[in-house]
Amino acid sequence: MEIKSILLGHGSGGKLSHDLIEKLFSKHFDNPILKQQSDSALFGVEGKHMAFTTDSFVVDPIFFPGGNIGKIAIAGTVNDLAVSGAIPKYLSCGFIIEEGFSYESLEQIVVTMAEEAKKAGVQIVTGDTKVVDKGKCDKVFINTSGLGFLDEKYKPISSGTGIRPGDKIIINGSIGDHGMSVMAARNDLNISADIKSDCACLNHMIADVLDQTTEVRFMRDATRGGLGTVISELVQNETYGIEIKENQLRIHEKVRGMCELLGFDPIHVANEGKVVLVVGKKDAQKAVEIMQQNEYGQQASIIGEITEDYKGKAWLETMIGGKRVIEMLSGQQLPRIC
Amino acid sequence: MEIKSILLGHGSGGKLSHDLIEKLFSKHFDNPILKQQSDSALFGVEGKHMAFTTDSFVVDPIFFPGGNIGKIAIAGTVNDLAVSGAIPKYLSCGFIIEEGFSYESLEQIVVTMAEEAKKAGVQIVTGDTKVVDKGKCDKVFINTSGLGFLDEKYKPISSGTGIRPGDKIIINGSIGDHGMSVMAARNDLNISADIKSDCACLNHMIADVLDQTTEVRFMRDATRGGLGTVISELVQNETYGIEIKENQLRIHEKVRGMCELLGFDPIHVANEGKVVLVVGKKDAQKAVEIMQQNEYGQQASIIGEITEDYKGKAWLETMIGGKRVIEMLSGQQLPRIC
Repeated sequence: MEIKSILLGHGSGGKLSHDLIEKLFSKHFDNPILKQQSDSALFGVEGKHMAFTTDSFVVDPIFFPGGNIGKIAIAGTVNDLAVSGAIPKYLSCGFIIEEGFSYESLEQIVVTMAEEAKKAGVQIVTGDTKVVDKGKCDKVFINTSGLGFLDEKYKPISSGTGIRPGDKIIINGSIGDHGMSVMAARNDLNISADIKSDCACLNHMIADVLDQTTEVRFMRDATRGGLGTVISELVQNETYGIEIKENQLRIHEKVRGMCELLGFDPIHVANEGKVVLVVGKKDAQKAVEIMQQNEYGQQASIIGEITEDYKGKAWLETMIGGKRVIEMLSGQQLPRIC
Repeated sequence: MEIKSILLGHGSGGKLSHDLIEKLFSKHFDNPILKQQSDSALFGVEGKHMAFTTDSFVVDPIFFPGGNIGKIAIAGTVNDLAVSGAIPKYLSCGFIIEEGFSYESLEQIVVTMAEEAKKAGVQIVTGDTKVVDKGKCDKVFINTSGLGFLDEKYKPISSGTGIRPGDKIIINGSIGDHGMSVMAARNDLNISADIKSDCACLNHMIADVLDQTTEVRFMRDATRGGLGTVISELVQNETYGIEIKENQLRIHEKVRGMCELLGFDPIHVANEGKVVLVVGKKDAQKAVEIMQQNEYGQQASIIGEITEDYKGKAWLETMIGGKRVIEMLSGQQLPRIC
């Protein structure tokens, strides 16, 4: 389909985003590293492997229960590096600020960023600030780019080339918290839902799993587009399928209620502190237990597995025993969720 | 002075930008690499030295004579790496796009980025796209972060620690073209000035100078805040001064005219294809000649020198023989110039 103008859905992380990347960015910026299309670009430097990633954050509102735009800006980029099997190390940050934005709010955001960076063990080593006239951006947008280093043996993780039938799908807790927290915090909705974003840096938890197991085949953080998009991307054009058991998914009551109210499927709602792992049968339970030791993985569990059936498809076995295909998010569900 | 809210001047690259960096970002993000406050963060990896930099681009209008926002986004980051003595290698790009933005314009920008990246010999290896609702940003903002590699011997260049009295100040051509080109292209100004931005990737020219000389002590691209800001930053808290000869500065007639009309000092007007070098006496003329071989350095010349006098100050010897101090740009002169 020809694209005439940019729609909100082109930034959703779902199908329209994929179209835009394929038709425009991958086509013109074509190179072997970009082609990997993983969360981070991977390349070798003097026998050392590096991961490089970027994300711009435009979340609205900029403060919400459980975090703010600065916290996401650190966690998002740290997690993108970590799920590539890399140890995150250096971050850049670029601010675009609306003229007249409160210094107090900016400082609060910067302090949060510094705290999160410290917790994650990363350094913000370079930055840039632009200010645009009032009305030409919305308070503040933040770009963070990140650099990490990875062991040779973790290189297959971001592409998932080692995945095989029988591998287990693991997630480190409940889904949909971030998206619904941000939605509830929007002024125009007047909902007091008491839902807290799960926004967090997961790199230490992920490093623990990688250090103590040998069968992690794939990881991805389930942000825009949610768990559903990660799962459906994973099977695209593959010789295997995925089956997810709905009764294994944790969804907080308030999140479920709000999704019903607003007509959203929790499986496509954004998270900012959830990682999906594919782990070999032998190590899967061990990985879950390691994650449960971490504050961000207490509710980690196996939610499904890689199957020989359903080649190229992801299926959800519903509570009542039915089955439905999990699609990539099409159009856009929640703009400016991160 | 206490900052209550963010002003356009905080993004100018001048004095207010410096205040904000010092009071907020450097204070909270404190670490030894950030403290270097050079154009790129420098750090070692397995005996290899790397440079890492970031810039967000919000230029208005997005198309102007001599370039567009995509061209600046590549050139700005490539040049930041190059002036650190690094060979630019990998770039990330993050787009923030306004809902409804024309796909044709976006493609034109992306094609330009691809062309510039190719010319500069860099690869765009990772990216991100966010779309915000109509009216919440201004068409398109682009962040590029960049990664380059540098030889141990070039490490002192970005801090300028090797600078000494007698060294020459070199610039690769006329000043003020970019700023005045963008100003003239603004719809509200109805000026048809026929001024072309100097926007260009200077990395090949810089590499030629570094390869063939041994006395390059410092380099910086004179973007926001112009030549004047680079010069006055350079002498701040130093034991030496700088003298620039006004009659050695090249300023196109139309740029000079427009500056007079609008009340700007060309020395503080932004460039996007100009690098200021400090080179030892022995190599200075050679460096100029090498630059003159390059399409972006045909008008390179020595414009001044490092002096024992005027410690911590930069002086301009004017055409008529008078002298005035060159200050850092205070307040803001031209918002959204890059």
